[in-house]
Amino acid sequence: MSVKPPPPDIVIGRLPIYLRALDSLAKENNDITSSYELGERLGISSAQIRKDLSHFGDFGKQGTGYNIRFLIDQLRDILKVNREWHVVILGAGHVGLALANYHDFTNHGFKLVGIFDNDSEKIRHAAGNLTIKDTKLAPDVIRQHDVKIAMIATPGAVAQDIADMLVGAGVQSILCYAPTTLIVPEDVHIQYIDPVTKLQHMTYYINT
Amino acid sequence: MSVKPPPPDIVIGRLPIYLRALDSLAKENNDITSSYELGERLGISSAQIRKDLSHFGDFGKQGTGYNIRFLIDQLRDILKVNREWHVVILGAGHVGLALANYHDFTNHGFKLVGIFDNDSEKIRHAAGNLTIKDTKLAPDVIRQHDVKIAMIATPGAVAQDIADMLVGAGVQSILCYAPTTLIVPEDVHIQYIDPVTKLQHMTYYINT
Repeated sequence: MSVKPPPPDIVIGRLPIYLRALDSLAKENNDITSSYELGERLGISSAQIRKDLSHFGDFGKQGTGYNIRFLIDQLRDILKVNREWHVVILGAGHVGLALANYHDFTNHGFKLVGIFDNDSEKIRHAAGNLTIKDTKLAPDVIRQHDVKIAMIATPGAVAQDIADMLVGAGVQSILCYAPTTLIVPEDVHIQYIDPVTKLQHMTYYINT
Repeated sequence: MSVKPPPPDIVIGRLPIYLRALDSLAKENNDITSSYELGERLGISSAQIRKDLSHFGDFGKQGTGYNIRFLIDQLRDILKVNREWHVVILGAGHVGLALANYHDFTNHGFKLVGIFDNDSEKIRHAAGNLTIKDTKLAPDVIRQHDVKIAMIATPGAVAQDIADMLVGAGVQSILCYAPTTLIVPEDVHIQYIDPVTKLQHMTYYINT
């Protein structure tokens, strides 16, 4: 019996993008879509979409397309966002405040339960629906709320210390907005959000 | 004679990440690095790094590693960030203001030349070193400053109209923070920054 290899990480990374597009299609009152329609929306080939989804099962019949609601439920299951994850934000500068005020976490599997800064002038101020707390309190909040996911929006120079603290408190996934590369244990996942690297990716293609 | 195929987009996307790591190594007063050291920092295999770089030339000698300064210069050349690109921000909400205050664009090839909003209460207020202007003025500023790159930080509902305006004014690259998928001509490049899809990518791996 052959064992199916785990789906490549790059495929996992595309599933949330498919989910986002399916959510839009559902909001526009569609019931059925096709890999072709999804591909047109996302700039991804329909063959790629079919191949990606085939790692996880058989979600549509040849010629009849995908049931949008069903596929959304399946993808939410696979990505484990058919539940609510508690999330904390470290750093209450412009980026941290933007995240605290971002309305799109709710209904996509995430609930913000804390925002922290070490600047006494920021502590106790409001940030979205939260109140900024002292960074020292973060480990307690993480343990109390069983937080597995954190977003780092601190300056680059302190991001590694913050990451060490988060991992020590039980965080397994870090979304890092600090312009640096973090070193974490192998079982901790990191994603980076860095506008500079995104812009530099595109300048390659600019015709001048 | 065989013609070399163009490097895959996914390889292009990793070059700015290598550049970021090399910049850090240079700041730490290193002269020489290896694909192994880079790989350790980035969580990418050294074989992958060597393969990626080999698309663009021969940057190191077997056994002696890479000259960091030389490799930085080469990557900046390849990515066309050995010059200054003018960039505009559309939308002066929390994300737009975070971008206007982000210090890391300078010295990485980018200069912010405008931030725009259609909210009269925001217009004429300061945002970083800029003054928020009426969105109606964006096409003029884009043409005056020969802007090829824009960042969209508007609500999702208006992002497509904004993108159409930008493309009409000559923008070739769009970094989109709005939680939506934009439709643009084939010669326009888009990158998305969406914390929700990044978080959903990581929840897949969380052990509960």
